[in-house]
Amino acid sequence: MSEKVKPKDALIETASRLFKLRGYCGVGLNDIIAESGVPKGSLYHYFPGGKEQLAIAAIDYTKTLVMADINSVFAGASSPLAAFQTYVYELSKVFGEGGDPLGSPIGTIAGETHTTSEPIRLACAATFKDWQAIYVEKFLEAGYSEQQSKSLAITFHALTEGGILLALTSKSGKPLEAIAEQIPFLLAAK
Amino acid sequence: MSEKVKPKDALIETASRLFKLRGYCGVGLNDIIAESGVPKGSLYHYFPGGKEQLAIAAIDYTKTLVMADINSVFAGASSPLAAFQTYVYELSKVFGEGGDPLGSPIGTIAGETHTTSEPIRLACAATFKDWQAIYVEKFLEAGYSEQQSKSLAITFHALTEGGILLALTSKSGKPLEAIAEQIPFLLAAK
Repeated sequence: MSEKVKPKDALIETASRLFKLRGYCGVGLNDIIAESGVPKGSLYHYFPGGKEQLAIAAIDYTKTLVMADINSVFAGASSPLAAFQTYVYELSKVFGEGGDPLGSPIGTIAGETHTTSEPIRLACAATFKDWQAIYVEKFLEAGYSEQQSKSLAITFHALTEGGILLALTSKSGKPLEAIAEQIPFLLAAK
Repeated sequence: MSEKVKPKDALIETASRLFKLRGYCGVGLNDIIAESGVPKGSLYHYFPGGKEQLAIAAIDYTKTLVMADINSVFAGASSPLAAFQTYVYELSKVFGEGGDPLGSPIGTIAGETHTTSEPIRLACAATFKDWQAIYVEKFLEAGYSEQQSKSLAITFHALTEGGILLALTSKSGKPLEAIAEQIPFLLAAK
């Protein structure tokens, strides 16, 4: 643990990194304590709800990181499709060989806990809604109807989640590159 | 365990169902033994490699189920897009409220094990390739170039994986319905 990182932040960052490597269930509190260097007492001070509460904090941390990323890509783009293509190319780099994506793998945590932890499922669902809200706004600005903007936001978000899964499984950024290449051909009609 | 189900099949079906509910890591061999009614000795007779080998069998079982599903939808369809829309509407029902998807959740297992079990990662990657190969063939038949057929197959497969994740996380088939509604608007150009 770096002296500059607060213990609470060190716990969240370590948990996020370990969940990314081994999933939610594959990480024990003792692993997080050992890797973060934060004593067990501090962990329970900051997270009296233990691993579940820490996972929700890791999900919120990831939510904020990803929202900043999406916002910065969309701020400078000429159209939602151009922005989305840039964003997926970025994902192909961070999830490809040698990349190091920040945050927790919300997709995996959601898949592991959707029937076993309602608080974690709800945190994942809220995160997905917040990401989609940025896309919805961009599609609305570009003149799509409210209904289509919402459906397109879900569709494009699903593409990123699925693309990330294919990248992790193949240990390569190529699936996300292939998706990015197809984006200009998608979505001709308003 | 029904008398008609062979012990090996009962183990695979039980493991698939439990992985679907709690992820790979959240299921112990003892859970599988208790729920399947198959004795521990039989489990190690059929699966000397234990849980990892059983997971690979569950992935193969799911691969076959899903391939049959995709093939049956695509066989009767007028175009790849029409087929794909029908397929995603089907997914919205099985992954929506009250649905009961068959097989193991390969996406979650892949996300949990991509750094911890190379045999499982490779089984997931091979499964994804086999599913995509069906899509590639259909796009080729419809006149798309080889390069674009491959990229579109990856794109559409990513859409299903991401859509399933959103459905599980929101406990609703609506995200997959929204994706299915958008499919006619996707992919205008060859």
